[in-house]
Amino acid sequence: MSEAPSEEARVRRLAERAGYDAASINPILDDGWVAHVGIVRNGRPVVIPMYYVRDGDSLLLHGAPAAGTLREGKGTEVCVSVTLLEGLVLARSAFHHSMNYRSVVVHGTAVPVDDPVEKEAALELFVERMVPGRQAMIRPNTAKEIQGTGVLRVALDNASTKVRSGDPVDDDEDYELPIWAGVVPVTEVLGAPVGDGRSPEGVVVPDNVAALADG
Amino acid sequence: MSEAPSEEARVRRLAERAGYDAASINPILDDGWVAHVGIVRNGRPVVIPMYYVRDGDSLLLHGAPAAGTLREGKGTEVCVSVTLLEGLVLARSAFHHSMNYRSVVVHGTAVPVDDPVEKEAALELFVERMVPGRQAMIRPNTAKEIQGTGVLRVALDNASTKVRSGDPVDDDEDYELPIWAGVVPVTEVLGAPVGDGRSPEGVVVPDNVAALADG
Repeated sequence: MSEAPSEEARVRRLAERAGYDAASINPILDDGWVAHVGIVRNGRPVVIPMYYVRDGDSLLLHGAPAAGTLREGKGTEVCVSVTLLEGLVLARSAFHHSMNYRSVVVHGTAVPVDDPVEKEAALELFVERMVPGRQAMIRPNTAKEIQGTGVLRVALDNASTKVRSGDPVDDDEDYELPIWAGVVPVTEVLGAPVGDGRSPEGVVVPDNVAALADG
Repeated sequence: MSEAPSEEARVRRLAERAGYDAASINPILDDGWVAHVGIVRNGRPVVIPMYYVRDGDSLLLHGAPAAGTLREGKGTEVCVSVTLLEGLVLARSAFHHSMNYRSVVVHGTAVPVDDPVEKEAALELFVERMVPGRQAMIRPNTAKEIQGTGVLRVALDNASTKVRSGDPVDDDEDYELPIWAGVVPVTEVLGAPVGDGRSPEGVVVPDNVAALADG
């Protein structure tokens, strides 16, 4: 556990589960696929699911929604939350039922990436994070596509992690009760790739795509 | 697809993927485990991951965070987002890479459930949604536990769904290129339960817990 970078980022509840350094933050972000991005619109909260990728000490978001909802002015205040569910925690009382998870919450400003070179590099990261090596195997971006995609950068310097793992924690006297308690593990599994059947004859699943499948 | 219940709930981007009726909304909520709950705090967005359960035409949230962050006054405006990732969509160009998913976004007011009878029924739902039949197998709630848990209700009458499924959609001319394209399925898998080893001798994994495991 390190120090909270700001009062905003400080985890208030169960602070012993919190972390604030890159060593805590980066592995969680690198294992997740979907961020929930919160903004304030007309004074009200809006939360949008978005694909993201980490680029060193910042996060990148992209897409037309990025260009639309988030791209208002020079930067929009966002809260980006990534959560990996890892288990259902079944305790001896309802009160101590819980979940195992790893999560990151980032507070920051979503700043548009407008430089075309920087933007193209960002777009490549989105593809490469999905399938390492894929950019070189697909049709290159056109200038129109690069122009037509909004990319936003959010620094990771105001972020926190929160992690729960392990067994349920029950009240001492409840351990004597004849009740089973433990964890049901939850994992996200990538399956065997399914082609769309529309490639020319002889095109097979590339090794880097096949390698994504778990187990 | 039905009509958007409000301008706020209307899906602006790729509106053909949107739905607004219970038949669209409920199955997605019933398959998810974690909601990302957005609020506005000091004018800024905050997004918190929370366990939730659907109760008819509303969502229930609970916990000390619910009691703390969300329980300000008679009700807090929230945006509750639930997203199920179902596939990585690998296209012939970076631009058409995408994800398959089912998502719900709910706009509403989180209203505290204060009536003790209603609250206890709500707490039971949280346990029963995790493991059907579990409430009867665990130590009953104490009055103190019920009192010490914040429960919030959010109506589902201002919500939308968005779904993407199926193959990549590439530019017509790109289908001639010798590039593999398709979908890598993503599924959330519940594994075999792991006991904490602290129950009295003879206590085995109950059938309803064992039944959670996929495949």
